[in-house]
Amino acid sequence: MIVVMKPASTAQQISDVIARVKSDGYDAHLSQGEQHTIIGVVGESPTPLREENYGTMEGVEKVMRISAPYKLASRHFHPHDTLVPLNGSHMGSKKVLIIAGPCSVESREQIIDIACQMKEAGATALRGGAFKPRTSPYSFQGHGEKALQWMAEARERTGLPIVTEVMDTAQVPMVCQYADVLQIGARNMQNYSLLHAVGESQYPVLLKRGMSATIQELLMAAEYVLSHGNRRVMLCERGIRTFETATRNTTDINAVPVLKSLTHLPVILDPSHSTGHWAYVTAIARAGIAAGADGLIVEVHPHPEEAMSDGGQSLKPERFAQLVRQVSAVAEAVGRQLAPQPMHPTAVNGTTAVHD
Amino acid sequence: MIVVMKPASTAQQISDVIARVKSDGYDAHLSQGEQHTIIGVVGESPTPLREENYGTMEGVEKVMRISAPYKLASRHFHPHDTLVPLNGSHMGSKKVLIIAGPCSVESREQIIDIACQMKEAGATALRGGAFKPRTSPYSFQGHGEKALQWMAEARERTGLPIVTEVMDTAQVPMVCQYADVLQIGARNMQNYSLLHAVGESQYPVLLKRGMSATIQELLMAAEYVLSHGNRRVMLCERGIRTFETATRNTTDINAVPVLKSLTHLPVILDPSHSTGHWAYVTAIARAGIAAGADGLIVEVHPHPEEAMSDGGQSLKPERFAQLVRQVSAVAEAVGRQLAPQPMHPTAVNGTTAVHD
Amino acid sequence: MIVVMKPASTAQQISDVIARVKSDGYDAHLSQGEQHTIIGVVGESPTPLREENYGTMEGVEKVMRISAPYKLASRHFHPHDTLVPLNGSHMGSKKVLIIAGPCSVESREQIIDIACQMKEAGATALRGGAFKPRTSPYSFQGHGEKALQWMAEARERTGLPIVTEVMDTAQVPMVCQYADVLQIGARNMQNYSLLHAVGESQYPVLLKRGMSATIQELLMAAEYVLSHGNRRVMLCERGIRTFETATRNTTDINAVPVLKSLTHLPVILDPSHSTGHWAYVTAIARAGIAAGADGLIVEVHPHPEEAMSDGGQSLKPERFAQLVRQVSAVAEAVGRQLAPQPMHPTAVNGTTAVHD
Amino acid sequence: MIVVMKPASTAQQISDVIARVKSDGYDAHLSQGEQHTIIGVVGESPTPLREENYGTMEGVEKVMRISAPYKLASRHFHPHDTLVPLNGSHMGSKKVLIIAGPCSVESREQIIDIACQMKEAGATALRGGAFKPRTSPYSFQGHGEKALQWMAEARERTGLPIVTEVMDTAQVPMVCQYADVLQIGARNMQNYSLLHAVGESQYPVLLKRGMSATIQELLMAAEYVLSHGNRRVMLCERGIRTFETATRNTTDINAVPVLKSLTHLPVILDPSHSTGHWAYVTAIARAGIAAGADGLIVEVHPHPEEAMSDGGQSLKPERFAQLVRQVSAVAEAVGRQLAPQPMHPTAVNGTTAVHD
Repeated sequence: MIVVMKPASTAQQISDVIARVKSDGYDAHLSQGEQHTIIGVVGESPTPLREENYGTMEGVEKVMRISAPYKLASRHFHPHDTLVPLNGSHMGSKKVLIIAGPCSVESREQIIDIACQMKEAGATALRGGAFKPRTSPYSFQGHGEKALQWMAEARERTGLPIVTEVMDTAQVPMVCQYADVLQIGARNMQNYSLLHAVGESQYPVLLKRGMSATIQELLMAAEYVLSHGNRRVMLCERGIRTFETATRNTTDINAVPVLKSLTHLPVILDPSHSTGHWAYVTAIARAGIAAGADGLIVEVHPHPEEAMSDGGQSLKPERFAQLVRQVSAVAEAVGRQLAPQPMHPTAVNGTTAVHD
Repeated sequence: MIVVMKPASTAQQISDVIARVKSDGYDAHLSQGEQHTIIGVVGESPTPLREENYGTMEGVEKVMRISAPYKLASRHFHPHDTLVPLNGSHMGSKKVLIIAGPCSVESREQIIDIACQMKEAGATALRGGAFKPRTSPYSFQGHGEKALQWMAEARERTGLPIVTEVMDTAQVPMVCQYADVLQIGARNMQNYSLLHAVGESQYPVLLKRGMSATIQELLMAAEYVLSHGNRRVMLCERGIRTFETATRNTTDINAVPVLKSLTHLPVILDPSHSTGHWAYVTAIARAGIAAGADGLIVEVHPHPEEAMSDGGQSLKPERFAQLVRQVSAVAEAVGRQLAPQPMHPTAVNGTTAVHD
Repeated sequence: MIVVMKPASTAQQISDVIARVKSDGYDAHLSQGEQHTIIGVVGESPTPLREENYGTMEGVEKVMRISAPYKLASRHFHPHDTLVPLNGSHMGSKKVLIIAGPCSVESREQIIDIACQMKEAGATALRGGAFKPRTSPYSFQGHGEKALQWMAEARERTGLPIVTEVMDTAQVPMVCQYADVLQIGARNMQNYSLLHAVGESQYPVLLKRGMSATIQELLMAAEYVLSHGNRRVMLCERGIRTFETATRNTTDINAVPVLKSLTHLPVILDPSHSTGHWAYVTAIARAGIAAGADGLIVEVHPHPEEAMSDGGQSLKPERFAQLVRQVSAVAEAVGRQLAPQPMHPTAVNGTTAVHD
Repeated sequence: MIVVMKPASTAQQISDVIARVKSDGYDAHLSQGEQHTIIGVVGESPTPLREENYGTMEGVEKVMRISAPYKLASRHFHPHDTLVPLNGSHMGSKKVLIIAGPCSVESREQIIDIACQMKEAGATALRGGAFKPRTSPYSFQGHGEKALQWMAEARERTGLPIVTEVMDTAQVPMVCQYADVLQIGARNMQNYSLLHAVGESQYPVLLKRGMSATIQELLMAAEYVLSHGNRRVMLCERGIRTFETATRNTTDINAVPVLKSLTHLPVILDPSHSTGHWAYVTAIARAGIAAGADGLIVEVHPHPEEAMSDGGQSLKPERFAQLVRQVSAVAEAVGRQLAPQPMHPTAVNGTTAVHD
């Protein structure tokens, strides 16, 4: 931490800051310039350093943090890529995984049908929402546990592991009965009670970036999950909120290489939410893989004009198959390949999640 | 709803859209221009109109919603100001309420001391956090139920009703034993499970705007609470996230008159979070009241340099007293007054909340 | 400047940085922590410090600037408020100035009529556009020099000094023949050629903040004007671009107290552009004065539904008169007053600008 | 255009709007719903429709534009890709062009050296700044005309056409003596005087998106150039300003497919400015081509730690060569190829620009 004193700060104010640094258990190094006095705070101590508190001391102009506030998520402390096992493949390896499926699970037939089509087109996992966070209380809120049962049936048929959102701490145990990966939605990225709860489960977590969360805040949210004992965290860039209205969100493609350099956790791109319009999904999926993403999560619906949610950004299955082909070509151009699909259907959930 | 057809759309595509409008139970009105054909969709039907689905039909360029998606929160349907009772005063009336106190409740002595000072300085309610949503899992997370008990003691001494945050559905019943107002924090504004839960309680809710939520999304979040039966909702502007880094957030002062025109719910400003720096809090508090806000929520700490959270944006009690005097002058300039303080301490929580 | 070395940096890399600091003519102070080594760079030298260059040296993690990059605009170096003379009054004093008038000067009659109405309602200066920066090449682009002549006539009648935009270096000499204050529009805030040109004139400059400019960038733009010899600069907050679409821009009300603390230059608020809707203009005008602004610039049009530009955000004259009354009450509540109006019409331009 | 009336609007107000539509020369189509009355405005007339004016009429809730406000830039009116000739190649064709070079031209030797290295590494054009828009008046502002002469020498040696920024209308004729492509910088995207001036030249224009300009505003800026007679416009995405601070800007990768669908003009990506850090440039360059961009503009400097500007985001020549190889592989994966380099040095400027 660095404390910058005001040009007009007094010797007494400077020594008060130094005294506090020492009483907090750290060392203080002084650099006295023409204008500013700078106090470098280094060392280790059990007392946490609260920048804000120093910032309110007399004579202090500003306080700057040096170290990243996350440890478990940091590549500095864990240089090797974390691999998250997913039904025989590993998210985070050279193999690119593609998660695909409808926004909402709308019926047993729908999800089983789509799952079969997704598998044929090359997907490696199945997404589908049972609990839907909708901006309007009057919109369809998901079929709940029934939808999870239907997804489990779809998994039995296809072997595709299930990725599905959990919205509240109270739902965690139930969702864990069915899911292979617990998705934390963008709106819940800073729901710390929920992060705590999934951190105590042993299920892989797909953590979506909040729509106005910085990259550092995303990593801090991951740190919550990691610090509660669950190391199987995948990060998902799904577009951020900006002034641009031509698309639903702005894909922060920079986040892909930035995250790959700051953290060892796998990075997934969601081109459906990050554009909000099916016509742009394939181009952005290609861009994500070209930028170094480890996987994609894509919304697909056989009849977008009938979808109960997110119809506008859902690809039809035939367009999704085209996306897979194009993404595969780009993956090879950057020295990667699509992950192989699960060979045999798995009968129970959690087999992929529990052992690795 | 209005459907705009592409310039190159065919007669068949136009009649397909019209057919769907009719099968959804609405009327379609056609305006055929040189370039664009516009289809106005009007009428009422039990089938909800999903703009997105129409947007994916062949030949459709875009779909625009006309009506606001909220009803219960809308001033159009409820022209009169909602008054939320708060220990003898009413949030939303001509009287301006001031909620003040520390970010975190740090000890029994601290909260009782501050409560007495706040009352003397002119506050009408006491804020304090028992459960703290912190970006780092390693930061102080609040004293939990113990803190609520201490706040209840502070209320016994001063009569000031308690405003405190609830972070998870599982906490709602417990927090309701102590609180007078349930605060929903900015990070949970779209935690729909939590909105549902507080909507089923009968406690007044202070709903903070998410840091990247639009005004419409804030109103939709309020609609969630209202639609579950709780009509005592207060909205809180607490700054939005923008590119500007000179302040922690950008106070969206425009939101004050915009909300007052769109909704009948009371509007509170939080100048502490919306600036993030104590030196700017008083100026923005004055601005909020000048713009028409119904109240303020302000962070105060006797020793900001020792605060366990938000020290940098906390006022010292003497500066808070000055804020109250200045805000009072501005309130009178715009035809309002500060609310009177509670005369007699109330012994139990909920008295202000349950009867009105 | 502070250079933070990577945790894995070598002794050689550290001494390379120190060597460069010395060869640039500065002193280097070392703080060696467990994780990071910090190098404080202090002292003075004719060689400018380029943070970016240090940032690319081997072993460097990041480089942080300590001092503000502006000097002439800084309150640190010039603690007293700058007063910009404006026809007998001074922008920046306790007296609040109100500049009002139409977006575009549409005809001789229009501008003379409005000027008279503005004067009667209490305005202290007249705004009006002769050259209009329009997003569409097909929109009305202003009446040019003719409009300036009409404004000069309006000044002769009313004594109100003229504030008008200059868009290009080539226009500066001509606009100076008529104007009392040269306005730099938001889109030209970083048109450095233009800043240079108005910096060489001796006319007061009203510098509008770019729609995505930070406060620091606004001050750097002011520094351009100041560094070319013109000390009569007024800053104008006119709303920034954010994700919120309920208003045309987001008024950055925080910028008012932040600017007042960082700089000695007067701060004006433009509630017309910062909201984009006439219904919110008065509330935000009150807020601006309550927050500490030194003046307002407001768009007024007798028939907004016929205006050639900005009709939607223009007040009718009678609403403007109401704004003046309300703003006056708020000004008094914060210890200020409206500036007196010019007593006698001035016959020539520049009298207010040249002598002070 | 669509006019939406307020639910409480009167029959008189509705007929006033209709009367105005007719007097403006358009047709009005009425859709009367339970809540809202909608008036569709269609047809053609010499009187421009000003939405804002309608928005201020009594009883009107809002006014929505249907047609895009640009014509010459629109793919709807010009379905075929515009090819901009550049020294034997064409920007906008299947061939991907790569423009590379230093931010500032620092000396004769520097630019000639870099030009040779760029050519060897595979670049198809040379960038370099002679006039530098710098945020600080105290920073290096460019070598001016001398730098242009040095660039012309570099072109003689390598045959690489020159892309360089013009900052002010007064500079246009002089810059045209040397440049092959006139670059309009992000800060000048809405400098309409300058757009007008380059629109009257016959030189290809590289128009950079303003840092907070919407895609539509970028297209409107292009429309300015096109409407003054110059059809050789290339658009450049160079990152937008958002809340994220981990990178200098946020690459709006969505803008690539969105622009390719809305306009026939070539789309270039600038991964240097859009990330602000050399370590991310190559990943984002690959992403840009994967997303469908027609070319790249990249900053390269042999000694970034000595660069007079933008050192932090400049690639060293060997890293640039690697970028070219990787981008080439991605280009082929999406069915494109790098453009061939100019075979023979061209002796005079403008040969590529004037004839096509």
